[in-house]
Order: sequence, then C-alpha cells, then structure tokens
Amino acid sequence: MKSKSNITSHDIARAAGVSQATVSRVLRGLGNVNGDTKAKVLSAAKALNYRPNAIASAMRTSRIGVIGVVVARLSNPLYTEFLRALHETLGGKNLRVVVWDTDGGGEVAAIDAIQQSLVDGVIFTAATHKSPVLDEAIKAGSALVLINRTVDGLACDQVSSDNTVGAQRVAEYFLHHERRRIGFITGSQEASTIRDRERGFLEVLERANSPIEPSLMRRVTFSHQSGRDAMRSLLELADPPDAVFCTNDLLALGALDAAVDLGCSIPEQCWVVGFDDVEMASWSTLSLTTVRQPTAALVEDGVRLLLARLDDPEIEPREIIHPVELMIRNSTGRQRIKSS
Amino acid sequence: MKSKSNITSHDIARAAGVSQATVSRVLRGLGNVNGDTKAKVLSAAKALNYRPNAIASAMRTSRIGVIGVVVARLSNPLYTEFLRALHETLGGKNLRVVVWDTDGGGEVAAIDAIQQSLVDGVIFTAATHKSPVLDEAIKAGSALVLINRTVDGLACDQVSSDNTVGAQRVAEYFLHHERRRIGFITGSQEASTIRDRERGFLEVLERANSPIEPSLMRRVTFSHQSGRDAMRSLLELADPPDAVFCTNDLLALGALDAAVDLGCSIPEQCWVVGFDDVEMASWSTLSLTTVRQPTAALVEDGVRLLLARLDDPEIEPREIIHPVELMIRNSTGRQRIKSS
Repeated sequence: MKSKSNITSHDIARAAGVSQATVSRVLRGLGNVNGDTKAKVLSAAKALNYRPNAIASAMRTSRIGVIGVVVARLSNPLYTEFLRALHETLGGKNLRVVVWDTDGGGEVAAIDAIQQSLVDGVIFTAATHKSPVLDEAIKAGSALVLINRTVDGLACDQVSSDNTVGAQRVAEYFLHHERRRIGFITGSQEASTIRDRERGFLEVLERANSPIEPSLMRRVTFSHQSGRDAMRSLLELADPPDAVFCTNDLLALGALDAAVDLGCSIPEQCWVVGFDDVEMASWSTLSLTTVRQPTAALVEDGVRLLLARLDDPEIEPREIIHPVELMIRNSTGRQRIKSS
Repeated sequence: MKSKSNITSHDIARAAGVSQATVSRVLRGLGNVNGDTKAKVLSAAKALNYRPNAIASAMRTSRIGVIGVVVARLSNPLYTEFLRALHETLGGKNLRVVVWDTDGGGEVAAIDAIQQSLVDGVIFTAATHKSPVLDEAIKAGSALVLINRTVDGLACDQVSSDNTVGAQRVAEYFLHHERRRIGFITGSQEASTIRDRERGFLEVLERANSPIEPSLMRRVTFSHQSGRDAMRSLLELADPPDAVFCTNDLLALGALDAAVDLGCSIPEQCWVVGFDDVEMASWSTLSLTTVRQPTAALVEDGVRLLLARLDDPEIEPREIIHPVELMIRNSTGRQRIKSS
C-alpha cells in the first residue's frame, strides 16, 4: 500500500470512480462539479487521508513569472514566428520570456534554469529525439510543453501539426497533376516534423508505384543556402525534376532562388512546394505553394497547457494534433485538386 | 572638496595625469600598464584615500549571468537578425538572454528587471526619444547600451550606423541616374534611424533643387503590408514615380509586392531601394538594392561596451558610428555611380 504522503489525485479519482480532472477541480475549489460528485471525491480523499503534495503547492505559490522558450535557428523564419506569437501570448499574461537557441545548447540550459527556479516552466519548439535531459527533467517534475516538434513516448504535453497528412496532400497533388519526375529536398531526421513529412510524402508515392528516384533526393542542413544548392544540383541534371517538395519553407525559398539563378521558370518548368506557410511565403514576390501550420493555435495551446500544468502538476500529459492546409500559390500550377 | 567616499577613478586619473582607463586597469589588477604609470596611479589613489565604490564592487560580484535584450516588432527581419547575433555573441560568453518586444511595453519591463536584479544589464535595439524611463535608469546607475537606434543627449553607450550618409548615397545614386520623379516611403520619426535617413535623403535632393513632391511621399507604420499599400497608391498615380526610396527593407519588400500585384516591371518602370540589407534582400528572388548596416559589428560593439561597463561602471559613455555601404542589386539599374 502507498504511504499517505504519496497519495495523488489519480488515486482519489480511482477510489471515487471519477476522472482525475474532476478530482483536481474539487480539491482546488473550482466550480463546474455537481454536488454528488463533489461529495464522492471529498469522501474518497478523506478515506485515503490525502494531503496536497507540499512540493506541488510550493510550485503553485513560488512562481517568478518567467517562462523559458527554446527555439531552433532563428535563421528559419518559422521560429521567429513562434517566438513572436509566444511573446504576444505570454506578454499578454504579464509573463516575462527567456529565450534559448538550440544551436547554443539551449535545451540543457533551459532545463538547468528550471531546476534553479530561474523560470517557472519551458516551452520547447525544437525538441529532438536526442534529448535525454528532457526525460530526466520530466521525471523530476519540471513543467515542460513541446510544441511544433514532438518526442515519441515522452510523458509531457505535446502540441503539433498533422505533418504526415500535410505531406501526403503534397504527394497526392503532384500525382493528380501528373508530375512525372518528382524531386525531394529534406533535412535532418532528428526532428519529428521532418520524419513525419518524409513518411507521409514517400508513402503516398510508393503506394502509387512512383517512388522517388534516389538521384532526385537531397538531404541537407536547414538553411536557405542549402535549399538553393540542392535545387541547383537537381536542375543541372540531364533529366531534371518537374516538381520538387522541400520539407520546410526555408529550403523551398532557397530552391526558388536557384531557379532564378539558372533561368528556370517556376512553375512552367518545375513546381516547388514547401511546408510551414511562413508569412513571406504569401508575398507576391515569392508566392510559394506550401502546407500551412497553424502557428498561432500551436502557441495558444502550448501556453494554455503549460499554465494548467503549473496550476496542477498532476494533470495527465496531453497530446494535441492540429489539422493543416495546402495553400496553392504561383510556385505550382495554381490548380486545386478537383473535388471528387 | 569631495568626501573620501566620493573619490572616483576619474579623480585619480586627473591627479596622476593618466587616462581613466589606465587607472581602471591598474586598480583592477590587469596587465598592460608599465611600472612607472602603475606607481603614479597607486600613489595618487593612496594620496586621495581612494576606496572602490562599494556598490560598484557589489555589481561586479553579484552578477547573475542574464542580459536583457529589447527589440522592436519581430515582424521586421532586421530585429530577428539583431536577436540572432546577440544570442550567438552572448551565448558564446555563457550569458543567458531575456528578450522583450517594445510592442508589449518592453522598455519599462526591461528597466524594472534591471532594478530588481533579474538581469545584469540591457541592450536596447529600438530605443526612441519618448523614453523618460531610460534617463531615470541611467541616473540610477543601470548598465544600458543602445544599438541601432540612438537617443540624443542620453548619457549611455550608443552604437549605430551612419544612417544619414547611407540615405545621402541613395539620393545621389538616384540623381546621378537622372531619376526625375522620386517617391519616398517612410515611417515613424520616433526612431533616430528613420529621422537620420530622412534628413540625409531630403537634404541632398533639396540641395540639387529636386525636392520630393508632397504627392509622392508616404508616411506609414512599419510593416510589409504598409509598404505594399503605400507603393500601390504611388504606382496608381496618373504620373507615377520612376524611383522610390523606402527607409527600411521591410517597407521596400512590401513595395516590390505592390509592383508584382500591379504588373509594374522593376527596375524597368520604377526603381526601388531599401535600407538595412536584411539577409533576404540578397536572395535572387528579391534582389533588393539597399544600404547595408553592419549588424554583426553593431552587436559586437554593443556587447563589448556592456561587459566593460559591468566591469567598471565609471567608464565615460561612448558613441560608435559604423560606416554603411550601398548594395546595388536588381531592383535598380544595377549600375554603380562612376568614380569621378
């Protein structure tokens, strides 16, 4: 049997036959719980001799009003947009923001900061599989939320876009418009976003018996210049592609530059599609077809989950996946898939 | 006569007939001072019964390793570039970065944070005239450095680009290539950068007896959309301009979009020039002629001056102005001014 000090709201929920969320609402004195349920919860809590966890209570009261944010390279405009939205949302709640860039060992620094109580919690926008520190921090009870990139099996709140389905839509769009030679420019598989986009895109092509030719695939680092170099090498082939999917907009914008450099007309000679729908993708000068991630919704959910966790560290971790949308612009034929 | 506790390194410098920097080096036990000079300084310090300022000493030893950074709207890629460079430079020195956006009252929040010792010092990239809080903070001994935008008469370290000369070069370039109808899209004069660019540009045109026609001038908020709307209204005039100077790249990139929207060929029908040289201005797809601010140098100087001030709060405020360069690209005739 558990010692009294280890009784949690989950134990009470089991004993009372209600959800943990209900127990949490009752114990925190919030409304929206009917009288019978409330009585059941309080009776179960009494029977188990429940006392709120001292550390959890301390966490609730000793907040310093600073939230950490970890982004990847700020050279990717996507992360600037996450940062801007996080600033607006957290600033609107009178919370200060500390920012780390993963390029400078940001994850470790962020977790150190939680453990030294320099921040109340951290929102990661760029977590990768290779993060044993994340696992340890969660076991130690740190308040963490992952948005954008997720990590399989990590017991914390995670909010992402449906990257797999988004990339599937791109492959279907290419096939529907009879693109015959499909090129693919992608990045490191450490990021869940990239793994999911690759899987979705390649699966659809394979199922259609049109797998990517190895000579038309490039795996590069995430930068505008990398996208440009990769596209140049594809366009200089004897038999160049007639459509190229880049797994993020930064790479795709670099690919558009290579086309300008080589006098290749987009979309007449080759289509280019990105992923993210960063703000500049919709500029008339660039007009990039891409898959829209709902950045603002990811941020809102991430902040909401983090604040809820600070209020009640025992909430079960939640996972939210947002739908995405293919935005057709001038870098492809501008024809939508006809509704069937 | 000054009381002993008010004796500063400046008094010792005067008494010893050396610079304050030399006194500071000697008192802090650093090398690079010859034996005679060192003896003179120590003898003067003894004669004046100098004891290091207790508060200054405390500041030196009680640092928490966090530097605040205040940026303007992150929707302007210039501020993302400043932020990225500041992250790299400060991160490389094991300093954490707290970021505020002026849109959310960042200046006041930053100064509060200094006064509560939540940060050791603050680098402002977006200070404006309307900052009484800055003045108070400096009088209270806070460690502040202004980069990019400066504030006249503020007694703190300031690092900027030569905005006036940069804008003069643009006006001279237009005149040399016989642009007859010159348009001007600019923003709020609260920013020193914008005031200086306007002054430089308009002065040269007036001196050449070609002042801007009021109907060809637009003063707008700083956004891509504002630049786009302003350029649209100029291009829709019965007698549209044949060259337009925008006082920053964000406005100029918006102006390029309006030209695409209206089917106006750049540079054949109209030249467009920006200011800042943000990274994307050099992309082949955008290829914007602009004046380059040496962002990295501004950041390096700003960090260097701030760290020096943390080491020795008595250093006289310094002002550094970096030279700028006109980068000729496809949005203008691509012809340089011939050297005369």
